[in-house]
Amino acid sequence: MEKKITVLPGDGIGPEVVAAAVRVLQAIGKRYKHDFQLGYAAIGGAAIDQYNNPLPDETIAMCEQSDAILLGAVGGPKWDNNPAELRPELGLLKIRKTFDLFANLRPVKAFPSLLDSSPLKREVAENVDLMIVRELTGGIYFGEKKRNDEEASDLNIYSRKEIERIVDNAFELARLRRGKLCSVDKANVLETSRLWRQVVEEKKEQYTDVIVEHNLVDSVAMKLITNPGHYDVVVTDNMFGDILSDEASVITGSLGVLPSASIRSDNFGLYEPVHGSAPEIAGLGIANPAATILSVAMMLQYSFGLKEEAAEIERAVSTVFEDGYYTADLVKDGSRALSTDEWTDKVIAEIDTSF
Amino acid sequence: MEKKITVLPGDGIGPEVVAAAVRVLQAIGKRYKHDFQLGYAAIGGAAIDQYNNPLPDETIAMCEQSDAILLGAVGGPKWDNNPAELRPELGLLKIRKTFDLFANLRPVKAFPSLLDSSPLKREVAENVDLMIVRELTGGIYFGEKKRNDEEASDLNIYSRKEIERIVDNAFELARLRRGKLCSVDKANVLETSRLWRQVVEEKKEQYTDVIVEHNLVDSVAMKLITNPGHYDVVVTDNMFGDILSDEASVITGSLGVLPSASIRSDNFGLYEPVHGSAPEIAGLGIANPAATILSVAMMLQYSFGLKEEAAEIERAVSTVFEDGYYTADLVKDGSRALSTDEWTDKVIAEIDTSF
Ligand SMILES: CC(C)[C@H](C(=O)O)[C@@H](O)C(=O)O
Ligand SMILES: CC(C)[C@H](C(=O)O)[C@@H](O)C(=O)O
Repeated sequence: MEKKITVLPGDGIGPEVVAAAVRVLQAIGKRYKHDFQLGYAAIGGAAIDQYNNPLPDETIAMCEQSDAILLGAVGGPKWDNNPAELRPELGLLKIRKTFDLFANLRPVKAFPSLLDSSPLKREVAENVDLMIVRELTGGIYFGEKKRNDEEASDLNIYSRKEIERIVDNAFELARLRRGKLCSVDKANVLETSRLWRQVVEEKKEQYTDVIVEHNLVDSVAMKLITNPGHYDVVVTDNMFGDILSDEASVITGSLGVLPSASIRSDNFGLYEPVHGSAPEIAGLGIANPAATILSVAMMLQYSFGLKEEAAEIERAVSTVFEDGYYTADLVKDGSRALSTDEWTDKVIAEIDTSF
Repeated sequence: MEKKITVLPGDGIGPEVVAAAVRVLQAIGKRYKHDFQLGYAAIGGAAIDQYNNPLPDETIAMCEQSDAILLGAVGGPKWDNNPAELRPELGLLKIRKTFDLFANLRPVKAFPSLLDSSPLKREVAENVDLMIVRELTGGIYFGEKKRNDEEASDLNIYSRKEIERIVDNAFELARLRRGKLCSVDKANVLETSRLWRQVVEEKKEQYTDVIVEHNLVDSVAMKLITNPGHYDVVVTDNMFGDILSDEASVITGSLGVLPSASIRSDNFGLYEPVHGSAPEIAGLGIANPAATILSVAMMLQYSFGLKEEAAEIERAVSTVFEDGYYTADLVKDGSRALSTDEWTDKVIAEIDTSF
């Protein structure tokens, strides 16, 4: 298989974790005889510095020529006081909208060997294996904004079509997993939520093999912590998804190892770690590359349909953890932390030797 | 002191926990020689059944004549399929708006004897003592709603004045506590959040003794679980406050014991437990009345300025837990659960005998 991938290292630890993930991608390419062609472009703070634009036209053009995008992270204190149009995050919001990446998938799965790092009791966190499906190109993020000196407003707006496509996506994922879907809204208060709930009710007739529940966002915010093992696929709007997916990311103690995908209808997608740019440790070579490496696995699976290759990366990462190798963020008292590169070497060795 | 209190038992376990809290209120009245005069009125499902209106005029009239309101809980499966204007929760939304109860205070404090029930590790939850201050009468809850067959929208709107008064309230609370305020917004996306953040920045000049931080809602959703001990006072808008306060309520394992206050500028207020109407255990006499009893303590403190009396209730509740008495929701393996009334008797005995 031949695929073009645009690589957007971004800011902070972005370049380091992306470099590690690219090495893993190349190892997979070699082993399974795929030709992954990489092009590099700028986004976020790095793009502001170079082009005075968090998402330059050059970057958009390169992404348009590719089959998928791999992103590190954006943002940092250097640009924190920039005006709104020159903020690194704007690059992220714009690339999502430009490429219509409406389906944000964020899986949260417990690695047994990392549970000590969880703030939750082991018995609460240990069987967690859920996927948050967040609508990413609509809602209050992109509705009309107004501001004068006395007042400010943001419009939360959803069309039936926007809801239908994300709900379809979530139903299909639930089918491939444990067949359970929890739709999250605030239907006792919001009109958008009432439309959302209605669409889910209509759609469920087409997916009679999936068990559906509706739940209010405040109630899910509690249950994600008291009983996270309850969930399989969780689907929700852009704003609720932002909050709940970050909340869910801490359940298993493995925030540093969580990947994400942001996908369009034709499976073109952007893949990035859930964690941020961590400017405080940038350049030290100690960042955990696992989340970005697992994002590459999601790319192989969702954009390229390469399931076996994706599973091989996941297996390798999991084995390296089980063998007791960790970067500084996860290391237990007394044992030695591996650097980003050393840890990546372990994953690559695992892939190479697993024939 | 002479005070008039409107009691709104509501639905499910509401009447039971309110009856228990009223007994404690009377015990306090007797001991400290206050005359608390009670009037009862309907709200929620009970009011729909009796008046076809979740907040009847009779109830509003009685509340207008009082110094404070004590509420049980509203809602239940019986009314779940009612049309929007005949839903129990509408009674709650309307009473908040009618009486301009803009400041919702939700304290979360660890009772050491309840930490076994927390989903969090003991060391994470044990020193938690935070207060969520949620704006309760503005934002997306009350902004214009639109709906047609193809589209739905909700307007999130805040005026400077609405933000100023809740922020003032939070600063003043922080001053009386540990002097730390975390303001939560989504200023990297929402215009309302940018106004919110600006108001906090302006206000902080008047409260130089308070340490202020701004934090994004997604980041707080994580940190409330990974490091809840970090927080003192957290102030945020109506929607974020709904989600974060429910999330925070599970930290200490004591959801059943969390009180809340919803207050107006002149200290008139509505007091209610954080938990819901729990229809599945209604009428069994086993509900935990602690949250409602502690809501009475908040009433004494915030509406009546009776600090000593409030502290006495808190001390009594805490002692009863330390002595190992629990209702069914908190009881540990092997020990006997007390009924609502038995547990309340313990609290009252503690108040009576503590001279
Ligand atoms: C950086 C920010 C605009 C973004 C969002 O809110 O979507 C981030 O929090 C995320 O979840 O990817
Ligand atoms: C019942 C509902 C409308 C209400 C709210 O969202 O405010 C409840 O969740 C609360 O927090 O008091």
